[in-house]
Amino acid sequence: MVIRAARAVRLRQSRMPAALHNDSFLRACLREPTDHTPIWLMRQAGRYLPEYRASRAKAGSFMGLATSPDFATEVTLQPLERYALDAAILFSDILTVPDAMGLGLSFALGEGPRFAHPVRDEAAVARLAVPDMGKLRYVFDAVAAIRKALAGRVPLIGFSGSPWTLACYMVEGAGSDDYRLVKTMLYRRPDLMHRILAVNADAVAAYLNAQADAGAQALMIFDSWGGVLADGAFQAFSLAYTRRVLGQLVREREGRRVPHIVFTKGGGLWLDEIAASGADVVGLDWTVNLGAARARVGNCVALQGNLDPNVLFATPQQIAAEAVKVLESFGAPAAGFGHVFNLGHGISQHTPPESVEALISAVHAHSRRMRGSAQGLPVR
Amino acid sequence: MVIRAARAVRLRQSRMPAALHNDSFLRACLREPTDHTPIWLMRQAGRYLPEYRASRAKAGSFMGLATSPDFATEVTLQPLERYALDAAILFSDILTVPDAMGLGLSFALGEGPRFAHPVRDEAAVARLAVPDMGKLRYVFDAVAAIRKALAGRVPLIGFSGSPWTLACYMVEGAGSDDYRLVKTMLYRRPDLMHRILAVNADAVAAYLNAQADAGAQALMIFDSWGGVLADGAFQAFSLAYTRRVLGQLVREREGRRVPHIVFTKGGGLWLDEIAASGADVVGLDWTVNLGAARARVGNCVALQGNLDPNVLFATPQQIAAEAVKVLESFGAPAAGFGHVFNLGHGISQHTPPESVEALISAVHAHSRRMRGSAQGLPVR
Repeated sequence: MVIRAARAVRLRQSRMPAALHNDSFLRACLREPTDHTPIWLMRQAGRYLPEYRASRAKAGSFMGLATSPDFATEVTLQPLERYALDAAILFSDILTVPDAMGLGLSFALGEGPRFAHPVRDEAAVARLAVPDMGKLRYVFDAVAAIRKALAGRVPLIGFSGSPWTLACYMVEGAGSDDYRLVKTMLYRRPDLMHRILAVNADAVAAYLNAQADAGAQALMIFDSWGGVLADGAFQAFSLAYTRRVLGQLVREREGRRVPHIVFTKGGGLWLDEIAASGADVVGLDWTVNLGAARARVGNCVALQGNLDPNVLFATPQQIAAEAVKVLESFGAPAAGFGHVFNLGHGISQHTPPESVEALISAVHAHSRRMRGSAQGLPVR
Repeated sequence: MVIRAARAVRLRQSRMPAALHNDSFLRACLREPTDHTPIWLMRQAGRYLPEYRASRAKAGSFMGLATSPDFATEVTLQPLERYALDAAILFSDILTVPDAMGLGLSFALGEGPRFAHPVRDEAAVARLAVPDMGKLRYVFDAVAAIRKALAGRVPLIGFSGSPWTLACYMVEGAGSDDYRLVKTMLYRRPDLMHRILAVNADAVAAYLNAQADAGAQALMIFDSWGGVLADGAFQAFSLAYTRRVLGQLVREREGRRVPHIVFTKGGGLWLDEIAASGADVVGLDWTVNLGAARARVGNCVALQGNLDPNVLFATPQQIAAEAVKVLESFGAPAAGFGHVFNLGHGISQHTPPESVEALISAVHAHSRRMRGSAQGLPVR
């Protein structure tokens, strides 16, 4: 018995991932105290980094990077080699799920994503189904490989587009200025739109849970296009399905809570409703006053954001001053409140890499000062 | 004395414009009672109308239409011939002022506006000045001609881009996805940005006042790009200069108040501050809940908006239902509250003209019902 128990412990230990050296991000997400404000950047592994551009050239394309666990691991870790970031995020695209549904995702050179088979009529909607997660194996393999390569430095965030945001691309077939096709369907055939969203929600939930099973330590839903909806339509066609996802997500892995983050770009007006969705963290873009947001919902969700990415085109001194403004806007650390620093949108490909260094240093230094101790623990 | 007085009266009468047959729009702007909710549509004279497309073909170009008082009058009145709209709006472009500053406006076929000489460095900023209003004579001539052609049917709205929105185009040189150039200047060289905005504000004020002198009965400032600014930057770089315009605008012409309307697309989060700017009316896009907005600021400004233009791709019955939702969201008419029905953005060129008829009928009929009298005065 003793021998068997010891073997079981050894077995469990060999499977146990490395202990987390910097858990400030997970703690802030759960509104637990941290010695500094953690920071990561949406699209932190991206074109503004010369090493990313080199990897992409080797891989041949964006999807070449995203579908190879080796390449995905390489580029996910690149910004962590340069900067004292407090979290890593899976390198992937928000549109992998509709691609797995058979819509045929491609990225034309210099353009955004495009679907070969957009969903525009009753027959196409009827054909939609939650895809076999086996088709997204490459994503889960990437999550596992990245997690191993991180070796406990910082937590890994998994993510997906929201049901509504996926539907925008699925109906439009590409990005859009006016969302005319998807909104025409929404207003003319709400039945079809609800069916797309229900399938998307169940697919997104399965997809995010599989990422958590593979090792993702936090799960983020990008509702990038929720903000284009009218009041009323947002609640019915975006938030309701984000909630349907959240209701199905795993809450714990490896004995630790897996925080759920919802980011609705342009959703500041619906902050109270988003905060009541069941998410642990609400992402905010730069139009929202963090202090006002904290006063409204800061005791029930952590807040993530919200520097304008264009600040990174200013001088290091100006970047530091703007970072301080965001930190001071959120206000003094207090029990039961959490802030994760981020941009209000993905980092621009034109960003000078040294701007990111200036930002992260300023956020770490000033947030330690705000906690009244300049001698906090080292971040990594 | 009697003869002289009689002659003076005759003289005044001959100069006096025709009496206004339908002043519901002006009354709602000033939060006075009306027998129905007045409606007009941003970009109501536009490409969705076949007769507009015919006029544009004759004129050869968009600016060919805008710079000819005859053509401008023709297209301004086209939607009024079809629909029971409660206001006319000058046919022009928001970028006429920077064009008069010498930046060289053009419209490439199938693209948006473009400036030949964008304002991107210290020297270009130093050269900027309030333009001679004589260069905008064609606009004021159009206002006078339209006013005459309207013969008092409905009031005429004059307009301009806001100082910030003009600055976006002046620095970017065209539309933009990320506003990188203008925001880089804002964050790196706020001194240059403030100088551009100060010149723009004084130019816009002179321009709007000249429109009022020529006969415009309400003045609207389109802050189309205010919503792309960060909280804090919006107040300093957009709203402060909108206020600078408002502070200089004429308040009365022809013995009647000239309402001032401010529309900041994406500005819902700053509603209280915009409402405190001194404007009479605040325009809202479709993301804002009208009832909540009314509760916050409805007793100090009238509200204008806010149907999603994409609703006009639905069936007439669905359009009517959505219009009713907007009216009911604003709520019951009450002393000291005003609502002007509009879209939350310009009407799409792809809109079926019959959709506009369905919308206007529904707004007029339901808003009369809400006033408890189905037998209100005819609208025109």
